[in-house]
Amino acid sequence: MTLVAELRGVFGASVLEDVPSEYLSDISRVTGSADAVVRPGSAEEVAELLAWCYEREVPIVPRGGGTGLAAGAVPDGGVVLSLERLDKVRSFDPELWRIHVEAGLTTGALQQRVRESGLMFAPDPGAVEISQIGGNIATNAGGPHAFKYGVTGDWVTGLEAAIPPGELVTVGGPIRKDVAGYDLKRLLIGSEGTLGIVTAAWLKLVPAPELVLPVAIFHRGVREGVDALLRVLGSGIQPAALELLDEETLICGGATFPGGLPDGAKFLLMAEADGPAAEAERIVGELVEAAGEGSVGVYAPRERAEIDSFWRWRSGLAFAVIARRGGAVSEDVVVPLDRLAEAMEGTTEIGRRHDLIAVCFGHAGDGNLHSTFLVDAQNQEELARAALAVEDLFELAVRLGGSISGEHGVGLLKRGQLARQWGPRALQLHDEIKRVFDPKNLLNPGKKLSRSTPGERLSLGPRI
Amino acid sequence: MTLVAELRGVFGASVLEDVPSEYLSDISRVTGSADAVVRPGSAEEVAELLAWCYEREVPIVPRGGGTGLAAGAVPDGGVVLSLERLDKVRSFDPELWRIHVEAGLTTGALQQRVRESGLMFAPDPGAVEISQIGGNIATNAGGPHAFKYGVTGDWVTGLEAAIPPGELVTVGGPIRKDVAGYDLKRLLIGSEGTLGIVTAAWLKLVPAPELVLPVAIFHRGVREGVDALLRVLGSGIQPAALELLDEETLICGGATFPGGLPDGAKFLLMAEADGPAAEAERIVGELVEAAGEGSVGVYAPRERAEIDSFWRWRSGLAFAVIARRGGAVSEDVVVPLDRLAEAMEGTTEIGRRHDLIAVCFGHAGDGNLHSTFLVDAQNQEELARAALAVEDLFELAVRLGGSISGEHGVGLLKRGQLARQWGPRALQLHDEIKRVFDPKNLLNPGKKLSRSTPGERLSLGPRI
Repeated sequence: MTLVAELRGVFGASVLEDVPSEYLSDISRVTGSADAVVRPGSAEEVAELLAWCYEREVPIVPRGGGTGLAAGAVPDGGVVLSLERLDKVRSFDPELWRIHVEAGLTTGALQQRVRESGLMFAPDPGAVEISQIGGNIATNAGGPHAFKYGVTGDWVTGLEAAIPPGELVTVGGPIRKDVAGYDLKRLLIGSEGTLGIVTAAWLKLVPAPELVLPVAIFHRGVREGVDALLRVLGSGIQPAALELLDEETLICGGATFPGGLPDGAKFLLMAEADGPAAEAERIVGELVEAAGEGSVGVYAPRERAEIDSFWRWRSGLAFAVIARRGGAVSEDVVVPLDRLAEAMEGTTEIGRRHDLIAVCFGHAGDGNLHSTFLVDAQNQEELARAALAVEDLFELAVRLGGSISGEHGVGLLKRGQLARQWGPRALQLHDEIKRVFDPKNLLNPGKKLSRSTPGERLSLGPRI
Repeated sequence: MTLVAELRGVFGASVLEDVPSEYLSDISRVTGSADAVVRPGSAEEVAELLAWCYEREVPIVPRGGGTGLAAGAVPDGGVVLSLERLDKVRSFDPELWRIHVEAGLTTGALQQRVRESGLMFAPDPGAVEISQIGGNIATNAGGPHAFKYGVTGDWVTGLEAAIPPGELVTVGGPIRKDVAGYDLKRLLIGSEGTLGIVTAAWLKLVPAPELVLPVAIFHRGVREGVDALLRVLGSGIQPAALELLDEETLICGGATFPGGLPDGAKFLLMAEADGPAAEAERIVGELVEAAGEGSVGVYAPRERAEIDSFWRWRSGLAFAVIARRGGAVSEDVVVPLDRLAEAMEGTTEIGRRHDLIAVCFGHAGDGNLHSTFLVDAQNQEELARAALAVEDLFELAVRLGGSISGEHGVGLLKRGQLARQWGPRALQLHDEIKRVFDPKNLLNPGKKLSRSTPGERLSLGPRI
């Protein structure tokens, strides 16, 4: 009997009859294979499926919206467990600033639901219309507004997760503080489905700001732009978001910038002020004063439609970057803020060394850079060079005191890279924690590995 | 050769010649015993001492300022490792909103240092002049301003810690995002010195608010007061702090309230607005409007001296509570905000059942209640009744969907209580994580235990 047939005998229509290709890949475009796709209808069914697989030693790969960039949800055989049917809001208490949701709810639906009550769920990773809150938790997703509001994990007060060998475990709840045990909640957050399968979460909310005002400030180059950024922080101004785009990014996407691209613009600082109206106005004024010095242009949209197209343009940037040569290998390294200019210049230099166009954009205020190498996705030799460039990039980030990943996670593509930034004892703790949660190594196996197995040549795999 | 003599042979003058009693207790007044007290002069020496003890199977109890309330730093033999000499600021970059400090720096010194540069380290647990940042991290300490600004762990971007068998491990650093590995940083935060000994931390900072305005609003009772609190949240007002004090607390300390106690005051809501001056003014106005309805008095100090004495009065409350009968058994349970009134009434009822005066104050906005039972510290029979009352209190907090500890931690006094709120698999993970970090169980042994050992009668020990 096939695995699908066996599973259907137990889990009925939750098991798909075939294995549709959309369950085998993510935005990295790495494609895997699976023996079955199951879409449980409840948290209990998730735990039962995990127990069933665990007993039979069948690997199980949890899947959210599939918008990951590190192939963290790409299966290599076994069962794909899609959370998509767990999309309920279990309870929403707007007057208490909290919501209890299932893992498969899209982040966009969550944001919209709370906004209707004047509240905000602040984390805003890309692709919110498709990505699911469970996946955001599993990767501890960030986004532009993490600068002021923190990352996804900062808003989670409780988790329900299925843990091997197949039990629903709850830590925390609708409570804002809890130090009764070791922080298992934070250990599950960002564990990319390798320690447990998040089935539901209690989230904190805050009142939405009255007014949100973005501003774009163009500079002549990296040094000038980063200096402007540092003047903002040095002046004690706290924007909600603080983004940067370098010259090559502007070459990819600048032509469609809503306000038009000023002459000589080779660096764009995008900031957003929020708060009560007067406060947002004051901050925008201060931003322009601090970051505008020596700039070649400032664009500060005021109308709702203008503001929307401003951020829509920012969201579309990743696509514009890919479009330029048909493919892009994009990372998410982090560096201390005082090493940001070096990291950007270093990215360009790495590109030059490997004969690739290098593009830098990202979450400047958090030192989180989407260093990206443009490739022809059909050209294997170019892809191989990009893989080497990425290795150099990780080396650079760690040498500057940073991290190989700020928000995408490790998944399959960055497996083994943690060994660059952690010492042997920390790596050992990492590996032993995995064994504590998942002794049979069946939960998203091969993902978020701390080091490559001896003899394994790290390959970044097929991707564009 | 005695342990002291052996240690002095290796660690010289870092080892005290005797064992002063001030290293054997904390604010809980539980007193233990130790064979030696060592005060290492560097992080490396901490790791060496840990290695030395680990090899010889000598228990090691890390100690910060000794301001803990759960006997988390009380030794039961072995070596007390005091971090007091690790009090350096390793680097401070005010223009980048970050600081790198050693564990033994007092939280007050840290706060003052950053404030001189216009920045703020927001967490404000009690006793900041004595408590050390390493201890605050080890307990994930909270405080009144956690409502807006979060707890200590939310400000830690990197940790250096000595981990068994005796190595310095670094996770994170001066970087604002990092998802490269499992969140070992958060696992160490709040682990109360049972997984590792924090030796240094990188901290995030924010610009200090321009103006801080407190307000006190008095109500006729618990229901009226909690309703006022819920109206604040329901109106979308975000104060920096939101504290409550019940009638019995006002009996303990109300006579010295700076603004005088209005007639009929049986509940006090203390809030603080902060931000740019206009914003703080606006929020105070909104607070008075939302929470003032039906109140019996409002006190809104404006002058610096008045504001200082307002918060000094709040800080002194714990002492006023103790003074009333000579002793107090004070906890820090957490409940969902919609169960706050029940938790307060339940505390009173538990006190009545055990013939003890019950007092409630705490961090209302976070649902974190310092439910306290007053005792004559010399009366063993009364202490025994208080121990039973505390058991009932933990049962109540968990029944209401809350936690047995919001900020004090588990230490020795709450060992075993986690089993009330976590299921078997979560408890097992907790215990196995301890074994992964500390296989010989020598690091602060007996603290933060998830469950009592079979047959052990949980005793809250001698305390007042």
